[in-house]
Amino acid sequence: MRGIDVNCDMGESFGPYTLGRDSEVMPHITSANVACGWHAGDPSVMDRTVALAAQNGVSVGAHPGYPDLLGFGRRKLDCSPDDLTQYIIYQVGALQAFCHKHGTPLQHVKPHGALYHAVLEDEELGRAVARAVLQVDPGLVLVTLAGPKGESMSSICREMGLDVAREAFPDRAYNADGTLVPRGSRGAVIEDPQEVAARTHSLARDNSVRAASGETIELEAHTVCVHGDTPTAVELVREIGHRLQDDGLQLRHMAQLTN
Amino acid sequence: MRGIDVNCDMGESFGPYTLGRDSEVMPHITSANVACGWHAGDPSVMDRTVALAAQNGVSVGAHPGYPDLLGFGRRKLDCSPDDLTQYIIYQVGALQAFCHKHGTPLQHVKPHGALYHAVLEDEELGRAVARAVLQVDPGLVLVTLAGPKGESMSSICREMGLDVAREAFPDRAYNADGTLVPRGSRGAVIEDPQEVAARTHSLARDNSVRAASGETIELEAHTVCVHGDTPTAVELVREIGHRLQDDGLQLRHMAQLTN
Amino acid sequence: MRGIDVNCDMGESFGPYTLGRDSEVMPHITSANVACGWHAGDPSVMDRTVALAAQNGVSVGAHPGYPDLLGFGRRKLDCSPDDLTQYIIYQVGALQAFCHKHGTPLQHVKPHGALYHAVLEDEELGRAVARAVLQVDPGLVLVTLAGPKGESMSSICREMGLDVAREAFPDRAYNADGTLVPRGSRGAVIEDPQEVAARTHSLARDNSVRAASGETIELEAHTVCVHGDTPTAVELVREIGHRLQDDGLQLRHMAQLTN
Amino acid sequence: MRGIDVNCDMGESFGPYTLGRDSEVMPHITSANVACGWHAGDPSVMDRTVALAAQNGVSVGAHPGYPDLLGFGRRKLDCSPDDLTQYIIYQVGALQAFCHKHGTPLQHVKPHGALYHAVLEDEELGRAVARAVLQVDPGLVLVTLAGPKGESMSSICREMGLDVAREAFPDRAYNADGTLVPRGSRGAVIEDPQEVAARTHSLARDNSVRAASGETIELEAHTVCVHGDTPTAVELVREIGHRLQDDGLQLRHMAQLTN
Repeated sequence: MRGIDVNCDMGESFGPYTLGRDSEVMPHITSANVACGWHAGDPSVMDRTVALAAQNGVSVGAHPGYPDLLGFGRRKLDCSPDDLTQYIIYQVGALQAFCHKHGTPLQHVKPHGALYHAVLEDEELGRAVARAVLQVDPGLVLVTLAGPKGESMSSICREMGLDVAREAFPDRAYNADGTLVPRGSRGAVIEDPQEVAARTHSLARDNSVRAASGETIELEAHTVCVHGDTPTAVELVREIGHRLQDDGLQLRHMAQLTN
Repeated sequence: MRGIDVNCDMGESFGPYTLGRDSEVMPHITSANVACGWHAGDPSVMDRTVALAAQNGVSVGAHPGYPDLLGFGRRKLDCSPDDLTQYIIYQVGALQAFCHKHGTPLQHVKPHGALYHAVLEDEELGRAVARAVLQVDPGLVLVTLAGPKGESMSSICREMGLDVAREAFPDRAYNADGTLVPRGSRGAVIEDPQEVAARTHSLARDNSVRAASGETIELEAHTVCVHGDTPTAVELVREIGHRLQDDGLQLRHMAQLTN
Repeated sequence: MRGIDVNCDMGESFGPYTLGRDSEVMPHITSANVACGWHAGDPSVMDRTVALAAQNGVSVGAHPGYPDLLGFGRRKLDCSPDDLTQYIIYQVGALQAFCHKHGTPLQHVKPHGALYHAVLEDEELGRAVARAVLQVDPGLVLVTLAGPKGESMSSICREMGLDVAREAFPDRAYNADGTLVPRGSRGAVIEDPQEVAARTHSLARDNSVRAASGETIELEAHTVCVHGDTPTAVELVREIGHRLQDDGLQLRHMAQLTN
Repeated sequence: MRGIDVNCDMGESFGPYTLGRDSEVMPHITSANVACGWHAGDPSVMDRTVALAAQNGVSVGAHPGYPDLLGFGRRKLDCSPDDLTQYIIYQVGALQAFCHKHGTPLQHVKPHGALYHAVLEDEELGRAVARAVLQVDPGLVLVTLAGPKGESMSSICREMGLDVAREAFPDRAYNADGTLVPRGSRGAVIEDPQEVAARTHSLARDNSVRAASGETIELEAHTVCVHGDTPTAVELVREIGHRLQDDGLQLRHMAQLTN
């Protein structure tokens, strides 16, 4: 039976600051990327978020980022591959402890923000992240970009023996070559929940999506990323579930799809 | 066969800053309290320190502290018990990942600085720390003060089912009631390595130590704390080993003594 | 002509996190307490907030706090008076630079959160804060609590030659002795904007407020504190202005009232 | 009368961590670049460092850096020019307050580490820094690299009306085109204090220095940077003073040379 995973960034609140609509969105997704206290999140937020995921049968992933709360991990920091490996181990280890407390296994690791992009562009950083994940637990899944830009990172992981979940962005326009239309460009972001759900459905059933130029392109994705802090976030994740069910597809946890 | 554990704070360097003489002291101790990046230490320092401990057959413990690098965790922060529990889980979990990487189990948790004292004075904070340790791994040992001031925390741990290692300070003067002479007072700190080694020997063999007032007092300790950043640190830890061996005693890991 | 100052905490956003309704509240107050990046705020937020104050003719004050973003400065940190002096100088100096940039003088300093309370309870900390303010600029006004609990800090400032603005909380219930009813207690917080405005009016015209027990008590205040993050914040600050005007009173900057 | 300024990074200690030999080096330099708490330094260290500079008649400069204590400000952080402007204003303002306390004017601003290099390579960041300095105090001097790599930043400052001090590194080898030999290369760092002093003397008297290839190249510098954390730091700064005096040259504050 075919299916797809829906992942969403969760646990991005910090101390007095609240971000995202975690409790409303959580019931409708399959994998939660939980911030680990470096670019967002704090131990109390991590605890609540893992508990919420466990209650909803949602698989937990670590969402490690650069040590840059001020910039929300969205700014590249030119750190060495060796330091990066340790930064990832630290953050993933911290989250693992909360998973252990709540009796739910850690499923995956998805680098956050500027780090997500850095590993796509720099093989050495990619290896540094993959190495960290393997050293913490070789059974974890690493999430990286579906399409041509993510091929290098996928290969690195395969070589090193690490499972990869390829991720598509159904609320983002794609070029004909399978790359994302840059955020600044016209039409780069698709806001209509119905359309995003339809694109998710197409990714799940046909491994394809319609490019901005009109043609249908192949894009093999295990998981789609949705955003939890938009006004339509809850409507969207609900809609995705309905759209898939109508066609005999289903939401599945990424670990089931990558093994 | 009788024995005692020797523990020392390790891994207190941070980024560009070096503190302590870890590589020289490590070969002579049995348990290392490794800072977890909140009051001192960083992921790269943690990695190096756990590797060094593993190479030297030294058992690793977590040394969590308040989120106060500026004050080195030596200043009481009035945080809630619930938050404190999560702070401990976070830090211990992060260190556990480095232990896993280096194939060495985590042995113990010793609260650092102001937190060490806070749990002695506030039962609710004591329970918060014990709960955190149990939630991460009920097989861990918690280190707390030997003598009357540590009795409450020891009881809490026993009630909750957590192993406790009682800790003495052979380089500190004791009052006749088994409490420590406060740091500011005359003669509070004993600097002569020979004398500190002799006091360690007395603690290991006889469960006793000479008080500042002259009488010998009973003090049951599983481990003694030595300081790794003094000029005589290396001489001291060597001397302790020799003193014990001369009398058929030996250095033992605290987990062997508390089970 | 009689009047009173209305102060409000501003600039408490941080990086990706937004807190408060600064742009809506600013037009209706006279003094803004601007967070300085330690318990809340960041340089870009400080810049925007000072600019917004200057545009609205609102006097700027520094709102320094403990180095505890995670706890929003609401947790007592047991730091030394000497360190505290330097922490205040640092934060006030940083804000002064933004005031200079926007051509508006710094008017006052109001310690934030746990620090606000710490100086009321510990004279040494009170002197440490007063000393810092004097060293940065002896023309600044220090804001502290009106009523018996603030008398010690007021005296310290007077002795040291520092102007004080005494502050009342019109949305908080008062005991008959002029102390605040603790937050946890029933009726401690008054939510009706009309009533809060009426109490502000009474403070401005008669130097008095009705206690929870019914009697009218004397309370001499130069400024009232309003909260900018409640649903009724905007309605409240508007209402205060109207209430005062109706009676020929006016909103005045605290520096005009304390000199 | 000819002369040159000698600047040195100071105040890089943090909380429990000590770095550099500030008190020994300070008597022999003319300008101190004081860390502002972001990449190094803290308020108490800043206070002590400014006091020490004032006692020794040394001019104080701000040494702002990226918000990266863990990386000591040596790693490029991809922040926006607007944010960078505010980061500089914040740090310079904080230091100014300590200068005011100790009755010594702030003389200059020298970006630290990765930020020093970033402004040489990216004009927009250069303008962002220059703008910050002008907004805090247009009378400040900005320190940047002498030679071809610093020309763009010097031009930006001139255009914007900001005084520039061009800085040479007498302990670094130069290429024939006036650029520095990269640190990794053989012979890149000159360790002999006598030779470094001789090179400083040549820079002061003749506006020239011998390149690694042997020829004498022109290099107009107002100030030379020395490093305060090397074993020979004190000997070096003493030697520079002697070498200059022997030839009727003298140590001068950079502000005297740039006006």
